[in-house]
Amino acid sequence: MTFESDAQLQAEISLLFSQYAACIDNDRLEKWPEFFVEQCFYKIQSRENHDRKLPISAMECDSKNMLVDRIVSLREANIFAEHMYRHIISIPLILSKSENEIATQTNYLVISTLQSGISHIFSAGRYQDRLVRIDGQLKFVERIVIFDTNSIRTQIVTPI
Amino acid sequence: MTFESDAQLQAEISLLFSQYAACIDNDRLEKWPEFFVEQCFYKIQSRENHDRKLPISAMECDSKNMLVDRIVSLREANIFAEHMYRHIISIPLILSKSENEIATQTNYLVISTLQSGISHIFSAGRYQDRLVRIDGQLKFVERIVIFDTNSIRTQIVTPI
Amino acid sequence: MTFESDAQLQAEISLLFSQYAACIDNDRLEKWPEFFVEQCFYKIQSRENHDRKLPISAMECDSKNMLVDRIVSLREANIFAEHMYRHIISIPLILSKSENEIATQTNYLVISTLQSGISHIFSAGRYQDRLVRIDGQLKFVERIVIFDTNSIRTQIVTPI
Repeated sequence: MTFESDAQLQAEISLLFSQYAACIDNDRLEKWPEFFVEQCFYKIQSRENHDRKLPISAMECDSKNMLVDRIVSLREANIFAEHMYRHIISIPLILSKSENEIATQTNYLVISTLQSGISHIFSAGRYQDRLVRIDGQLKFVERIVIFDTNSIRTQIVTPI
Repeated sequence: MTFESDAQLQAEISLLFSQYAACIDNDRLEKWPEFFVEQCFYKIQSRENHDRKLPISAMECDSKNMLVDRIVSLREANIFAEHMYRHIISIPLILSKSENEIATQTNYLVISTLQSGISHIFSAGRYQDRLVRIDGQLKFVERIVIFDTNSIRTQIVTPI
Repeated sequence: MTFESDAQLQAEISLLFSQYAACIDNDRLEKWPEFFVEQCFYKIQSRENHDRKLPISAMECDSKNMLVDRIVSLREANIFAEHMYRHIISIPLILSKSENEIATQTNYLVISTLQSGISHIFSAGRYQDRLVRIDGQLKFVERIVIFDTNSIRTQIVTPI
């Protein structure tokens, strides 16, 4: 692994993560499944349950179709308090890379602002990701959101 | 657009954004206008007003001279509660680039610490930027600060 | 300094900082001293004391051995409230680089989550770092943590 290719790969991963965050924060959720491959895995789970390998999670989808369904039902239900998300992404950490796949881990912070105008910490935690390059574009094979913040004021409805 | 040039450009933009944040956080506000070209536009506006294209903003300057004036009057007035800003900048998203101009969008979080020593979320939101390169140095033609946090404990006096 | 080498160096520094944060956040504190050279300096100090050049600090170690001792006693004492840290690192700012040493300054935010599950701002501030490359790997000669957040709910026991 040369430094040059590292810098390139980091630029690519950074672009992907900032596009992902902007997609959610700008409420273009219908575009969100496009960040994943067809046979993907997406899970939001508490750090406690993750560390103990317990099955209970706040959200779990094992295909891109399920991600699409998730957004459809979210739009239809729409009974939750209106809020805005704002993702602050720390520096991505590349854990490993092979010819086919890149594994990364990245700390995140999601700030939520309700209609009152007050911003609070909605979720702090880390992403554990597996990425592949398809037609020149990085996509998620797996994104596991492991959150520290177990006590939240609103439900986890939208993806993180 | 090659990956190599992407990595270089991202390094340049990252440098600019971290210098900009350090300038404000270290209270060297007199240097702040230097990040802009002469004919620039700087605005701080709520997301609500921005989305509805309403004119009301928390701060608006349409030239570098106005930015300079802003800092002069801020130093003279000085009637607001003493506070420290700390900018946490998420990954910059390059939206487009031409030969002359780069458009970016970047999430930010500003933590404010008052003399009590308590830190709180002062502002969460995003930058919408237009950048040009002048004499080898990136400068802002336009920086629009669109904040989610509508309910704040202190006035927006210093730039974000 | 060419843009290319800038991008490479920034990728290296970013990797170091994300590994450092992951080491602490994942509670692998025994690995933490490995980020430093033998003759290193590590200090956690309030911005107020730092600016006034006052000697009092929350933590101060002037060798790698002292860092090791610090972790040993932290593990043995273990009388503080259980908590999780989550570092959100802003964009590193390279201040200077010579053949032997790189000086950087980087804003950070540490979110702490107690057993209640509530996340709060534990510390906001900046790192002031001096780095050297040893056997191809960047290491800290000096890391000074200068925190804004003077009023904290729990003691500073673990490194930041």
